Amino acid sequence: MPELSNRGFSMPESPIRKLVPYAEAAKQKGRIVYHLNIGQPDIETPAEAIDALRIMDRKVIEYSHSAGGLGYRTNLTNYYNKHGFNITPQDILVTTGGSEALMFAFNSCLNEGDEVIIPEPFYANYNGFAMASGVNIVPVTANINNGFALPPIADFEKKITSKTKAILICNPGNPTGYLYSKEELETLKDIVKKHDLYLIADEVYREFCYDGKTHYSVFNLDGIDDNTIVIDSVSKRYSMCGARIGCFISKNKALVSVALKYAQARLSPPTLGQIASEAALNTPQSYFDEVIEEYVARRDILIDGLNKIEGIKCTKPGGAFYAIAELPVKNAEKFCQWLLEEFEYNNQTVMIAPAAGFYATKGLGEREVRIAYVLNKEALSNALICLKEALKVYPERIETKVSELSE
Amino acid sequence: MPELSNRGFSMPESPIRKLVPYAEAAKQKGRIVYHLNIGQPDIETPAEAIDALRIMDRKVIEYSHSAGGLGYRTNLTNYYNKHGFNITPQDILVTTGGSEALMFAFNSCLNEGDEVIIPEPFYANYNGFAMASGVNIVPVTANINNGFALPPIADFEKKITSKTKAILICNPGNPTGYLYSKEELETLKDIVKKHDLYLIADEVYREFCYDGKTHYSVFNLDGIDDNTIVIDSVSKRYSMCGARIGCFISKNKALVSVALKYAQARLSPPTLGQIASEAALNTPQSYFDEVIEEYVARRDILIDGLNKIEGIKCTKPGGAFYAIAELPVKNAEKFCQWLLEEFEYNNQTVMIAPAAGFYATKGLGEREVRIAYVLNKEALSNALICLKEALKVYPERIETKVSELSE
Repeated sequence: MPELSNRGFSMPESPIRKLVPYAEAAKQKGRIVYHLNIGQPDIETPAEAIDALRIMDRKVIEYSHSAGGLGYRTNLTNYYNKHGFNITPQDILVTTGGSEALMFAFNSCLNEGDEVIIPEPFYANYNGFAMASGVNIVPVTANINNGFALPPIADFEKKITSKTKAILICNPGNPTGYLYSKEELETLKDIVKKHDLYLIADEVYREFCYDGKTHYSVFNLDGIDDNTIVIDSVSKRYSMCGARIGCFISKNKALVSVALKYAQARLSPPTLGQIASEAALNTPQSYFDEVIEEYVARRDILIDGLNKIEGIKCTKPGGAFYAIAELPVKNAEKFCQWLLEEFEYNNQTVMIAPAAGFYATKGLGEREVRIAYVLNKEALSNALICLKEALKVYPERIETKVSELSE
Repeated sequence: MPELSNRGFSMPESPIRKLVPYAEAAKQKGRIVYHLNIGQPDIETPAEAIDALRIMDRKVIEYSHSAGGLGYRTNLTNYYNKHGFNITPQDILVTTGGSEALMFAFNSCLNEGDEVIIPEPFYANYNGFAMASGVNIVPVTANINNGFALPPIADFEKKITSKTKAILICNPGNPTGYLYSKEELETLKDIVKKHDLYLIADEVYREFCYDGKTHYSVFNLDGIDDNTIVIDSVSKRYSMCGARIGCFISKNKALVSVALKYAQARLSPPTLGQIASEAALNTPQSYFDEVIEEYVARRDILIDGLNKIEGIKCTKPGGAFYAIAELPVKNAEKFCQWLLEEFEYNNQTVMIAPAAGFYATKGLGEREVRIAYVLNKEALSNALICLKEALKVYPERIETKVSELSE
C-alpha cells in the first residue's frame, strides 16, 4: 500500500465536525440531537433566491467567468459601495464559499513557511487552510473575561518577525461573536501600515451586529488599500450555506490578478449558487430586520440561560451567532462526546463544539465550547435544559469559582 | 505595498483562458467568435437536472455532509457499480468539480517536492494544481503521430525516482481525445504495482467513447485497490459544467479518511449542484446515445476538415471532445492571438487554445493547438472555414511537408 502524505496526516480534523459520527449514532438510537455545533442556521433562505432557481430559463448550466459572472459582480459592487467600500467589479473574485477566498488570500500573499497572525480563538478551519497552504499561524490570545476584544497591540508587535506577512481577523468573530470597534480597527491599521502587512478580514457575519452597533469594515480604513483583503460569503447573510458562494475583494490590482490565476485553475465558481446569490441581493431590509431580531432574542435566551447554570461562564457577544462558554469540566471535548454517547434527558441531547480546536496555543480552551445559536427559541431552551441536566450528572464535573467575569 | 507570494507569481496562467481579453475585444468590435478553446459544450443539460431545481421544496439551502449527501453518494455508487467499480458510498467524496478532487488527491498522497508522472500533453490546469500543492510534475511525452497513445513503459521507468508517488492519467484524454485500451491500463497496473505508486485516473470523459469502443476504468483493474483513485465530474457527462460537482473515489480507506479532512475544512460541496446531479442520474440512455452521435458527427467534420487544410496534421481521437492539431505556424500562441486581434472572415473568427501550455517539457507543442468540438456542426464548419482562410493570409505561416502521419 502506498504511503499517505505527511501533510495529509497532519491536517487537523474539524472540531466542528469530528463528533458527527457520535451524533449519527445517537440519532440512530432515536434521540433528538440539538445541533448547536455548526453554523447552519434554520433561518429560511430569502424567497428571492429560491424563486430565481425555479424560474431559471437556462438550457445549459454553464461555467461562469472564473472571476464570477460580471452581472453578479456588478450588483455585488453596489451592495458593498452602500457600505462605503468604494470598489469596482474588477476588485471582486467570486469564490466557492468564503473558504476558497481565504485559500486564494493565503496562496497569493504568503509563501510556504510565512506567518499569519490571528487573534485566538479563531475559526478552526483556518488551521486546515493554513496547513493546506503551508502557512504558519501565529496566535495572539484574546481573553474570555473581556468577551475576546482585540488583544493589546503590544501582543501583536511581539509576534512580528521577518516571516510575518499578514494579520487575519474575523469580524464579527466566529467563534467569539465579538464585534471589533472602529478604534480597534484603527489600531490594526497602524500596525499593518508600520510593517507593510496584509490585513485579511473575514467579514462573513457583517450583517449580524446587535444592540445598535454597526459594522466597521477594513475597507472603511483609509490609506491601506493595497494591504486590505475582504473575505465574504452569502452563506450566513442569506442563510444559504449550501450555495457555496463567497468572494475575495481587494483594491490591490496585482494581488487580484495573482488570485485570478488560482481562480482560473478551478475554472468557475458554482453557477447555480451565483444565480441564487444575485437574486438574494434583492432581499428586502425587512428580512434582515426580522432575522436580526430573531438572533438577538436567541442570543439573550442562550447567554442568559448559560449564565444561570452553575459553573458556566459566558459573555454576551455583539455580533455573529456564536458564543464561547467555559464549562465546569476539565476536558470539554470529552464532555461533548459524552453528551452524544451516554447522556439523554427525555430522549434529547445537545451537540456543541469543543473550543480547544479554535486555539492554536496548545492547552488553551480545553474547558471551553463554542455554541452556535442557530436553532429556534424553543429548541434553544430545550438544549439549555439538556445542558443543565447534563452538568448535574456528568461524572467528571469539576468545582469552579462562581464567576471570574468581574475580575 | 506588501509583496505578493512567489508561488502566486509562479502560478501558470490558464492557456485555455489567457486569451479571453482578446476574445472580449473582438466581440466588442462586433465579431462573431467561435469558441473552440474551452470544454464548455453547447449540449443541453438533461431536463431531469434542471427540473429538480424547479421543484425543489427546500426552505433553507443548507450545507450537505462534507463528503456529499448520502443519498447522492448512494445513487452514484449504483451508477459506478454498473461499470464494475465494486464500491460503497463510503468510498466516494463528492467534490466541487473534478478540480477539487484532484487537489484532494495531490494533497493526500504527495508531500511537497514529491513527483507525479503524467503523460504529456495533459490537461493544462494540472500545472496549476501541482503548483498550488507544491507537487512536481514529471512528464512522459506522448506522440502526435500515433494519436498520443500511452508512451512505452520504459519511458515511465526512466522517470521513476525515490520522490515518485503517483502516475496521473486522463482517460479519455483532455487535450488529446485518446482512449486508453485495456492493455495500456494493464501495463500501467504493472508499473504501479512494482513501485507501489498511486494511479490517479481523471475519468471525467468516461461516457464519451466512440467507434464502438468502451471505457476501461482503473477500477476495472484487479489487485491494486489501495493504489487507485478515480477523479470524476458531472460537468461534461451531463453538460452541466456550472454545477461544480465532481467526486473523489478510492477503496483505500485510510486515504479517504485523510481526503475527508480536506473536505471538512471547506465544509460542503455545493448543495444545489448536488440536487441537480442526483436527478441527472435518472437521465435516460437515449440522451447519451444522441449526445454521442452528435459528438461523433462533430468530430468527423472537424478532423476531416482540419486534415483537408494544407499543412495541418491531426489524428482522429477515440474519445472526449478534443483534438490536438499541428499547424503550419512557428508559434501557435501568437497565431491564436492574431486570430482574435487581427483576423476576420465575413466578420467571424475562431478562438482555439495554444497547446504549449499542455506540455510540461519546454519547447514542445509550440506548433500545436487544442481544439474542442463543443459547438454545433454549422458553427464548427464556419470555424473551419475561418481557420482555412486565416492560414492563407497569416503572415508568419511556415512551409511544412504534407503529412508526417504515415511516417
